[in-house]
Amino acid sequence: MKSKENKDEYIVIIGCGRLGSHLARLLSKARKSVVVIDKDEHSFHRLTDEFSGFTIEADAIEIDTLLRAKIDRADVVVTTTNDDNTNIMIAQIAKTIYNVPKVIARLFEPSRQQVYEELDIQTLCPTILSAIALGDMIIGEEMGELK
Amino acid sequence: MKSKENKDEYIVIIGCGRLGSHLARLLSKARKSVVVIDKDEHSFHRLTDEFSGFTIEADAIEIDTLLRAKIDRADVVVTTTNDDNTNIMIAQIAKTIYNVPKVIARLFEPSRQQVYEELDIQTLCPTILSAIALGDMIIGEEMGELK
Repeated sequence: MKSKENKDEYIVIIGCGRLGSHLARLLSKARKSVVVIDKDEHSFHRLTDEFSGFTIEADAIEIDTLLRAKIDRADVVVTTTNDDNTNIMIAQIAKTIYNVPKVIARLFEPSRQQVYEELDIQTLCPTILSAIALGDMIIGEEMGELK
Repeated sequence: MKSKENKDEYIVIIGCGRLGSHLARLLSKARKSVVVIDKDEHSFHRLTDEFSGFTIEADAIEIDTLLRAKIDRADVVVTTTNDDNTNIMIAQIAKTIYNVPKVIARLFEPSRQQVYEELDIQTLCPTILSAIALGDMIIGEEMGELK
């Protein structure tokens, strides 16, 4: 695994919706090498001039697409589509076939979280994150321990 | 405005989707008084036994609904529906007509954030929050300053 500080860290983002495109922009600003995959070319309109990476218009469920994105050389793969099943399927391929060091899946249904973590796939659930953040804004305490 | 530590703080949540229901559960665990409004009775199935508040099945766009929820006595109103326009409309009513001390609107479209904040309505954008959290997970730095 490469160092955290390595500027050449290579990151593949699956899905260029609101979350994928915003993440791609943040990572570009942090001078990371980023490729974003989405099967809908219109989705790439969400990427602003700040995005300095590459885009691939194709279905990431297909191995050919992942190989075109050089998944075998990726340091990080993040799956951000709107479908939990798609996200976990691609995350599993990245982890078990291509041994990507860090794989993160967006997750809508929090009850599945443990299964993913047993596969060494990190998860991010925007609902839980947002509920905790709202809780903090409302009662000004650390809500994390209550989740 | 009541103290942060007041256990009798009264909170009205608009929308019982994933976010609204999860927040209602967190606030119940923190022993807050919570009322959740949603026009779809099925949405209340998301509330678990941990939820100790009340539910109102009605359209929160209607003033009558807000009065039934005793919005004029609320310390906090949070709008969590899936529609930005609905969220901001109810947030404005809560703030300008009923002088609710703290009003927070969920926001899908980040570009509108500044307008809301000029109205003294706090906003939470799950996309931005999640992108920053993913950025932190990936590069292990504080991404907030890059947003």
